[in-house]
Amino acid sequence: MAAPRMPAFDPFDVPESNASMLPEPFASQAKKRHFRRLGAQAGLTNFGVVLTRIEPGGASSQRHAHLTQDEFVWVLEGETVLVTNDGRQTLKAGTCVGFPKATGEAHHFLNETADDVLLLVVGDRTTGEVVTYPDVDLLGRMLDDGRYVFTHKDGSDY
Amino acid sequence: MAAPRMPAFDPFDVPESNASMLPEPFASQAKKRHFRRLGAQAGLTNFGVVLTRIEPGGASSQRHAHLTQDEFVWVLEGETVLVTNDGRQTLKAGTCVGFPKATGEAHHFLNETADDVLLLVVGDRTTGEVVTYPDVDLLGRMLDDGRYVFTHKDGSDY
Repeated sequence: MAAPRMPAFDPFDVPESNASMLPEPFASQAKKRHFRRLGAQAGLTNFGVVLTRIEPGGASSQRHAHLTQDEFVWVLEGETVLVTNDGRQTLKAGTCVGFPKATGEAHHFLNETADDVLLLVVGDRTTGEVVTYPDVDLLGRMLDDGRYVFTHKDGSDY
Repeated sequence: MAAPRMPAFDPFDVPESNASMLPEPFASQAKKRHFRRLGAQAGLTNFGVVLTRIEPGGASSQRHAHLTQDEFVWVLEGETVLVTNDGRQTLKAGTCVGFPKATGEAHHFLNETADDVLLLVVGDRTTGEVVTYPDVDLLGRMLDDGRYVFTHKDGSDY
């Protein structure tokens, strides 16, 4: 079969990054999760689509909840532990998960296996977003221009 | 492994439908595409996530383009023919496709194989949406309450 041509593409042709906007020590702790920005690659602006790869021993992010933005995750490959306010559960490929905004349902995905985990993650870009982190002293706020600022929970700078 | 519990779920536990909002003959022509509303199942409202199953000989929709809404598709299973303004191409599972709003890039997916095709389809709910169909006499407009109205291209009722 011929290689796909735009607007179709092979997601693994998109460059991968494990950069983080978070202050230390959180940025260093995020090195085992890698993402490919598929939505941006396609020119989409209304919502984001990210292919997330979690190495063995890694996590998708700090456990967090969204105030104004919805999130949807499809487990593409591997076996992942989803941690929510309600505790842990192990999910296999083909499972999906939804996090409606403003529920306070704080979540992340862990890789406790010896193989990579692949997640397809979708989130919108509704204004007024605040990201809360129940387990660490961190607070994220989306500015009017779409950039994020991360501070201590009391709003003071890192 | 235990069955997933909310907010995680098995997408195939979500009821499937092949209902259509389109006027005839388009509704009857859509019977070979079935959808499961995964985002709604999860309680998401900012964007829609649909698991689309296309039977052999079917199409995802009439070929169409969006004015204000982005669309993203991940080919989950099977082999599908993507038709755009530029022609046809065959895509295998694991390929993704993005359709930015307001490009006039009219698209649909065909199943010309003997097996089902499964697509994961994401679209947002930005207001002012107009759906244009270059191949048939059809026009879709989203009303302020989110419902869609479908007319002839000249705006007259079916």
